[in-house]
Amino acid sequence: KMASPDEVGKAFLMHYYQTFDTSREALAPLYQAQSCLSFEGQQFQGPAAIVGKLTNLGFKTVAHQATSMDVQPTVAGGLLVFVCGNLVADGEAERPLKFSQAFHLMPGEGGAGYWVLNDVFRLNYG
Amino acid sequence: KMASPDEVGKAFLMHYYQTFDTSREALAPLYQAQSCLSFEGQQFQGPAAIVGKLTNLGFKTVAHQATSMDVQPTVAGGLLVFVCGNLVADGEAERPLKFSQAFHLMPGEGGAGYWVLNDVFRLNYG
Repeated sequence: KMASPDEVGKAFLMHYYQTFDTSREALAPLYQAQSCLSFEGQQFQGPAAIVGKLTNLGFKTVAHQATSMDVQPTVAGGLLVFVCGNLVADGEAERPLKFSQAFHLMPGEGGAGYWVLNDVFRLNYG
Repeated sequence: KMASPDEVGKAFLMHYYQTFDTSREALAPLYQAQSCLSFEGQQFQGPAAIVGKLTNLGFKTVAHQATSMDVQPTVAGGLLVFVCGNLVADGEAERPLKFSQAFHLMPGEGGAGYWVLNDVFRLNYG
């Protein structure tokens, strides 16, 4: 039985944020040469540039908690995964930051899971 | 000269929110049969269902103001447009609502502009 879009989205987010919150450099295999990241308006392309940015963010520890997820099919087997959530940086649990993020996942060759073609991250300032 | 992704995104958002804020039913031509809208977690497909939802939202007047826009190329000439902004419903200008929204635009046949394949809207509660 094929996983539903929601099941794929949920499994992806669990894997992505768990990896982000424990060992950001291990996110590299999720990106390919044409992958784009927009992080608070800054643009990066390809695994090295993207993971370079993510591993150099100005906090030591971080924990993401998704509060909503929307998933839609796109083209060529792709999925748009839209997340809103809270982010706790450096243990400041009393001051979580709100964020929203969109991932555009594409199926890997030969059924090898999904990779991230598009990644847009924005903090939502109160 | 072809418009850049940012130029397309900016022109699309201006047109989309101006139309939304003045005559929501006129948004129908932007959607096609396979278009999906996720609105606060509710899903709709096709122009009639999507515009039916948008014209039945619980406010009489609304004004969108985008505060950030990120645009990335996707596949088959598509563009991912990610917006954060403020929304004033029924003139409550002292209490704007924060929102984020992702549009996945696809080029029309024969250079006929872009249409919306994917549309995800979420309010960002403080």
